[in-house]
Amino acid sequence: MTQKKVAILGAGSWGTGLALVLADNNHKPVIWGNLDKIVNEINESHTNSHYLPDIILPTEVKATLSLDEAIDGAEIVVIAIPTNAMRVVCKQLNEALKEPTILVHVSKGIEPETNLRMSEVIEEEVDATKRKALVVLSGPSHAEEVALRHPTTLCASCKDLKAAEIVQDRFINNNLRIYTNDDVIGAEIGGALKNIIALGAGISDGLGYGDNAKAALMTRGMAEITRLGVAVGSNPQTFYGLTGIGDLIVTCTSVHSRNWRAGNMLGKGENLDEVLEKMGMVVEGVRTAKAVHGWAKKLDIDMPITESIYAILFENKDAREAVDLLMGRKKKIEKESF
Amino acid sequence: MTQKKVAILGAGSWGTGLALVLADNNHKPVIWGNLDKIVNEINESHTNSHYLPDIILPTEVKATLSLDEAIDGAEIVVIAIPTNAMRVVCKQLNEALKEPTILVHVSKGIEPETNLRMSEVIEEEVDATKRKALVVLSGPSHAEEVALRHPTTLCASCKDLKAAEIVQDRFINNNLRIYTNDDVIGAEIGGALKNIIALGAGISDGLGYGDNAKAALMTRGMAEITRLGVAVGSNPQTFYGLTGIGDLIVTCTSVHSRNWRAGNMLGKGENLDEVLEKMGMVVEGVRTAKAVHGWAKKLDIDMPITESIYAILFENKDAREAVDLLMGRKKKIEKESF
Repeated sequence: MTQKKVAILGAGSWGTGLALVLADNNHKPVIWGNLDKIVNEINESHTNSHYLPDIILPTEVKATLSLDEAIDGAEIVVIAIPTNAMRVVCKQLNEALKEPTILVHVSKGIEPETNLRMSEVIEEEVDATKRKALVVLSGPSHAEEVALRHPTTLCASCKDLKAAEIVQDRFINNNLRIYTNDDVIGAEIGGALKNIIALGAGISDGLGYGDNAKAALMTRGMAEITRLGVAVGSNPQTFYGLTGIGDLIVTCTSVHSRNWRAGNMLGKGENLDEVLEKMGMVVEGVRTAKAVHGWAKKLDIDMPITESIYAILFENKDAREAVDLLMGRKKKIEKESF
Repeated sequence: MTQKKVAILGAGSWGTGLALVLADNNHKPVIWGNLDKIVNEINESHTNSHYLPDIILPTEVKATLSLDEAIDGAEIVVIAIPTNAMRVVCKQLNEALKEPTILVHVSKGIEPETNLRMSEVIEEEVDATKRKALVVLSGPSHAEEVALRHPTTLCASCKDLKAAEIVQDRFINNNLRIYTNDDVIGAEIGGALKNIIALGAGISDGLGYGDNAKAALMTRGMAEITRLGVAVGSNPQTFYGLTGIGDLIVTCTSVHSRNWRAGNMLGKGENLDEVLEKMGMVVEGVRTAKAVHGWAKKLDIDMPITESIYAILFENKDAREAVDLLMGRKKKIEKESF
């Protein structure tokens, strides 16, 4: 296979993990970071000890502080940054891009002020003439496990399946199986909204409830995510695939998940400010819960679990009381209309 | 609410847990057991220490060695026994039943010789004139957690929704939320086949693989279960509800699950005979894997994960090699045709 250069914007755990995969596949990954310390460590020690402790990176993984250097000659630019930095980074990228390029993003969230998905934000900030295609790469994937080369699956979603297949070809190997599909909206809604349910799973565990409660929350949570997703144009099936239920499972059942950990503290009685201070990093589910709360109201979609989590986060609702209310809702037939 | 008598056939953890719920709801549960020791312990000490250690049962939970006594005057008979005892118990029940009664079953498996679901086995053994309705009660539910009154959800499935609603009314309370639906086939296929995937989840964990691998296995596993379920008349949606993905999640992610534990030992290199001897109790997934292996071939349905688990169980296939083969399958679009 011809060696390709791939730029990765973001030197966090996922950006670094994906660079490792590309190096394993004999491509040329270049990570763009904004911290001297991390960029130097990647280039000199071949580690990124803050984000991926105990992992030795292939020497082919390079990093740079220069966006121009990172994207120069790259076939693909992978955007791997927190959602709250998306607009500002995309503005820079738009300035820097010289020719139409395949953009891939791996960020999971909904912009609170606008209810826009990340691909919509990218489309607003990067001129159409500079985008050959826009692909979402998502699925059940702790970066740490990908870096350990444990078996993992992802899905590359793009309206243009040919572009999804190029991304599939670059990343696929014996440890990382890549599927493709054409439902960008479904992949983004599933990836973003599952973080709200992960907060809920953490809350349930923090309250001392068991596996039954958590499985119910995840199942009924995915039903309401699907309801919203279908209303905005997704294929319902996507939610039962890797970017939907798959990603939900990995996020809700692992103590590594930031959203689960934040929820767990909330369930144990801490308030949101204390939790966010302790976490010291972005908890995407909190931002997304705020976005979806208003969005669901606007679209008139029944999302009782999301509403309860919103109330716990932002209205000081007692967590145990919120769960009891959910259990006491009127008797229902388990059937959706989509 | 009028107090109703409910007979429960089987004094295992699930039968006893359901009896506790009925007692909490002011009904009269009578458990039919076949061991003196357990029946006496329930009646005298109000415990079932072998199956539900540390749980004190309400004094209204009674047990008897007499099937006639258990079912006399019962509005509902709940069948809560391992699938390999289903025919023999139903033959006895058919002899003993004096009038048409609502039957509920909570057993999860497929009969290997016939590929019949448990409700089909019951229909073969209990005369139609003695069945007012046949309801499946299923969902994500460790008995231990139900007995601890932790929040839990179940689904009562019956072609006759009125009968499902009677069952819903008897069992529902603030800890146990009961949904209804009319897809008996889907509920039974989901409940039975998820045990195969739980073996697989245990194998993956036993091999030392991580959460990504397990979530992928569960997601793709549910896709192949749905494929078979739809081929035999289920509604695909059922598999994304409590009796499908909900039950799968609880069974695959809990170390309490027998099927997961058996798989875990297999993943660590033990063979099936050793594992079954150590378990010392029924591992439904092993029996169901045998059934589904032949069934899928007959129906010409692609079930690569089930096939791999069958090969590990019965053909001495090396577990790591089986996973590697799964990861290396040809590149696929993630899209189902149902």
